[in-house]
Amino acid sequence: MQIRPATNADRDAIWNIFHEIIAAGDTYAFDPQMPREEALAYWFRADTHTYVAELDRQSVGEADGFLGTATPSPTASKQGRRIAGTYILRPNQSGGGAHVANAAFMVARDAEGAGVGRRMAEHCLTEARRMGFRAMQFNFVISTNTRAIHLWEQLGFKIVGTLPGSFRHPENGYVDVYVMYRSLLS
Amino acid sequence: MQIRPATNADRDAIWNIFHEIIAAGDTYAFDPQMPREEALAYWFRADTHTYVAELDRQSVGEADGFLGTATPSPTASKQGRRIAGTYILRPNQSGGGAHVANAAFMVARDAEGAGVGRRMAEHCLTEARRMGFRAMQFNFVISTNTRAIHLWEQLGFKIVGTLPGSFRHPENGYVDVYVMYRSLLS
Repeated sequence: MQIRPATNADRDAIWNIFHEIIAAGDTYAFDPQMPREEALAYWFRADTHTYVAELDRQSVGEADGFLGTATPSPTASKQGRRIAGTYILRPNQSGGGAHVANAAFMVARDAEGAGVGRRMAEHCLTEARRMGFRAMQFNFVISTNTRAIHLWEQLGFKIVGTLPGSFRHPENGYVDVYVMYRSLLS
Repeated sequence: MQIRPATNADRDAIWNIFHEIIAAGDTYAFDPQMPREEALAYWFRADTHTYVAELDRQSVGEADGFLGTATPSPTASKQGRRIAGTYILRPNQSGGGAHVANAAFMVARDAEGAGVGRRMAEHCLTEARRMGFRAMQFNFVISTNTRAIHLWEQLGFKIVGTLPGSFRHPENGYVDVYVMYRSLLS
């Protein structure tokens, strides 16, 4: 798996993943109908560092839970590599709050279980430290997203706030949302 | 005091207040050098309801702590009214998070103590209920801003999260930041 800064050539692959995630509507507070250009403008915002996780076909076949299909994946590249995930890293606030990073992660549904999220998160923490951020904060972790919460806790994040019923889940109705935080100084 | 939706004619007065607040740099996580057009674009964003609090000269003279001066205030209008504060109201998130409102308030420094902030906050809660929001959240209340915190608590907000050292205060260094929340259903 290679994690690298995204380029304009990755926009189609990123949009495919982004759209798949927001259309499900159970992990992010984005409008499921958000248009492509608006989504990409958000993901490539001027203050944002954008990355992709790329798998080659061999590791695709080996990845636990990564289902190979006979038909080519819409995110497969011609070079035998495939974008399986994407993440962004940026200041959570401006001015006096710019020393705290924010990040968001998306993994293609058919790449879940292959460790793409964990590898991106570890990469992200390293990048954030390298850029001099003192901490990282997730503003809106939906409490039903237990896989993500488990990963963040394993990576040292703690729940520092609970927003009661702040997300309307498509199946579960109003559910709590967590604010999660970890220092990058230790 | 009249609180009403802002118009383009209020842009100068809003910028004067906005600039004064962010230049002080102790209550908002904005870049103190944020340019006028960027600030106004943020304050008048498409998803945002923008309001101003207008005082007439009589109430200016009567307001506790509102210092009258011999020279005309830069925010004084020709009609004998003066913009003493401004606030914004909008969804805190999109999609499944759009039922929770966010708001931000700014009062001209020389109008502090006149109850402008409280009146705007009460107006804001009424507007948010009218628009159908189920709750209101402040994402970034700096812990040293005790006057604001006291007001929010009086108006039913609770601290639901503490972000450790997430604001670099110009005098106090790294200070905690609160996430504050109140339901609008009760």
